[in-house]
Amino acid sequence: MTSLPIDPPARLLMGPGPVDADPRVLRAMSAAMVGQFDPAMTGYMNETQELYRRVFGTRNEATVLVDGTSRAGIEAALVSLVRPGERVLVPVFGRFGHLLAEIAGRAGAEVHTIETEWGQVFPPSVLDDALARVRPHLIALVQGDTSTTMNQPLEEVGALAAKHGALFYTDATASLGGNPFEADAWGVDAASAGLQKCLSGPPGSAPLTLSERAVAVVRSRARIEAGLREATDVDASHGDFVRSNYFDLGMILDYWGPRRLNHHTEATSMLYAARECARVLLDEGRDAVVERHRVAGSAMLAGVLGLGLEVFGDVAHKMNNVVAVEIPAGVNGDAVRGELLADYGIEIGTSFGPLHGRVWRIGTMGYNARRDAVITTLAALEQVLRRAGVPVKHGGGVDAAVEVFAGAGA
Amino acid sequence: MTSLPIDPPARLLMGPGPVDADPRVLRAMSAAMVGQFDPAMTGYMNETQELYRRVFGTRNEATVLVDGTSRAGIEAALVSLVRPGERVLVPVFGRFGHLLAEIAGRAGAEVHTIETEWGQVFPPSVLDDALARVRPHLIALVQGDTSTTMNQPLEEVGALAAKHGALFYTDATASLGGNPFEADAWGVDAASAGLQKCLSGPPGSAPLTLSERAVAVVRSRARIEAGLREATDVDASHGDFVRSNYFDLGMILDYWGPRRLNHHTEATSMLYAARECARVLLDEGRDAVVERHRVAGSAMLAGVLGLGLEVFGDVAHKMNNVVAVEIPAGVNGDAVRGELLADYGIEIGTSFGPLHGRVWRIGTMGYNARRDAVITTLAALEQVLRRAGVPVKHGGGVDAAVEVFAGAGA
Repeated sequence: MTSLPIDPPARLLMGPGPVDADPRVLRAMSAAMVGQFDPAMTGYMNETQELYRRVFGTRNEATVLVDGTSRAGIEAALVSLVRPGERVLVPVFGRFGHLLAEIAGRAGAEVHTIETEWGQVFPPSVLDDALARVRPHLIALVQGDTSTTMNQPLEEVGALAAKHGALFYTDATASLGGNPFEADAWGVDAASAGLQKCLSGPPGSAPLTLSERAVAVVRSRARIEAGLREATDVDASHGDFVRSNYFDLGMILDYWGPRRLNHHTEATSMLYAARECARVLLDEGRDAVVERHRVAGSAMLAGVLGLGLEVFGDVAHKMNNVVAVEIPAGVNGDAVRGELLADYGIEIGTSFGPLHGRVWRIGTMGYNARRDAVITTLAALEQVLRRAGVPVKHGGGVDAAVEVFAGAGA
Repeated sequence: MTSLPIDPPARLLMGPGPVDADPRVLRAMSAAMVGQFDPAMTGYMNETQELYRRVFGTRNEATVLVDGTSRAGIEAALVSLVRPGERVLVPVFGRFGHLLAEIAGRAGAEVHTIETEWGQVFPPSVLDDALARVRPHLIALVQGDTSTTMNQPLEEVGALAAKHGALFYTDATASLGGNPFEADAWGVDAASAGLQKCLSGPPGSAPLTLSERAVAVVRSRARIEAGLREATDVDASHGDFVRSNYFDLGMILDYWGPRRLNHHTEATSMLYAARECARVLLDEGRDAVVERHRVAGSAMLAGVLGLGLEVFGDVAHKMNNVVAVEIPAGVNGDAVRGELLADYGIEIGTSFGPLHGRVWRIGTMGYNARRDAVITTLAALEQVLRRAGVPVKHGGGVDAAVEVFAGAGA
């Protein structure tokens, strides 16, 4: 077998993620290694913590990266915060709610789910009732679920959780950066994310933040590795330790904290990427990035409607950064996707579960939440649908998108 | 707070890892994203599997990357292969043996350790006796433990494990590439590694291979996520499922295999890095890379001895790629390391546990297993030791190393 150097084909990634990384992020990853306890490295780590505090909207000291993909961040939060046998409430409004339930269940939690129809979100009263009934140790709730494109309102959830004595964890992987997120103002105890959606980076690093209340739970379960333990350290020989070494947030906090206790070896290049993702976002401004996603998402929505297509779900609660488009009757959804990829280099997404074969998912996120990316995609989609025999309106997508951008002064 | 673009200081990383990445690997990481099911991406994944089969010396179909640092690979292997309550034998000859015991213990295994003095390895007869006594489900053994620099001989361990009905897992993080490794010839059932040592890459991706026997264990515990399960799939509702979603190798194999069942989103840039690490190694030739490490390691050993220093441990069983150097009496080890970093840009390593403050660890690995890196480090070390008042022989290190390289025709 022979192989050639990495040389990916030209692509415009307009699916539900990963999307194109910002070139600044790609360049940051080509920087040289430094030792894991080099002052330059620990300086980068400290800066990265401060940058993600701003991204998450928090003053939480415990703001770090988990070295793995987004679901590594989810598992680290759940396995560290929930003891086997403790109750976890998971309101499910799409595939990624099922994933939270799955991960919590594997960690030994007593998982209680409530479900709503795909394409809807939960009103606060339903969450309040479920919290009162289940009385969980923790409520785990996805913010933006790309499987349905819905953006669950979180503003009141922290207060509801606190009222019922529960911790509040949210998975902000698909939403962070492209939609408002305020960890402190919303009373979030734990949140995790990834880089490959609205943060314009590659998958493989999971920013995570923990409130003081969450840190107290993690700390109460502390266990230091045999090879590193000192006589004065607390040892969780009482049995209440985290059932994972890699995902034990207590150890991860000790590695990122002033003690710099060796745990994993921080993934240097992914740290560089994560740091640059945050810098890219904060250089533009957190509110400005959300607004850019709002405008690009509105333009894409107007565009697909302007082509005469229908969209799935309650668009009043749609994430800014992805739209689910109904595949017209008689059209082979995968053939359309294939032609978009082959003839235009544009990727749009397929779907999971009940929506498989029923909708395409089109993203406008991160680096690709841009005027040219949106309008080019709509022009290409119009041509491919026309060739597939769909009676699309000539220029209907492009004109509608241009109008949205013009109205936004973009 | 302001932050500047990533711009690490010039460093020559001669510690126990991470070490400088090969520039080819850094360039590969700056390539653009592609979608996770893009034919280009799945092609890169397939090629990466085949490349790592060659690196590990195996025909194992189940050869993949785990998306995390080296210890993510360890935890994935142990949590997937060992059920709670099953016996695991861990022969400990340094810090990373303690880590294997720690990870297996957190996974609920009944862990039995045997220990040998730091600086020694286990003879086969001791392993045979322990296997007969403990009768474990799995023996977990580090190959190269950087904490002591020892390279545990593994040639006979697979046969011993098979004789006693045990699976054989080895952690080859620190050794793979720089020392002989033959997964199939040695009867290894599972092995994992990292990129940041002899493979000349960044930390953050863990190559892993499983024998058919290991795959059968993983498959017997299969559980497919609720959102993805089909009626014909086996469901481990019998309770024998892996207590982690992220590290469930059955799901990871289904993602890498022809079904391409969605699990995590593969860490694109780290995949590019891992693929290029293997290409760099195989372009030079697996045996040639081991030989380069042997020569560079011998030169570094001769050099430190030529300076009048003493080395720790049984050098007959030393890894090619790292040496532990006794800190001379009266010398502040950290001050020497600080001066090497400040005045020469060279990093050497400190130590853990019983060796902390007693030895430096000097690596010659991956991209840095090079004549110029070895000789420059010895020249710098000589100057720093001289200034610290150590009676080093003028040119004793450089001359001894040059002689080794000359004798090897290098």
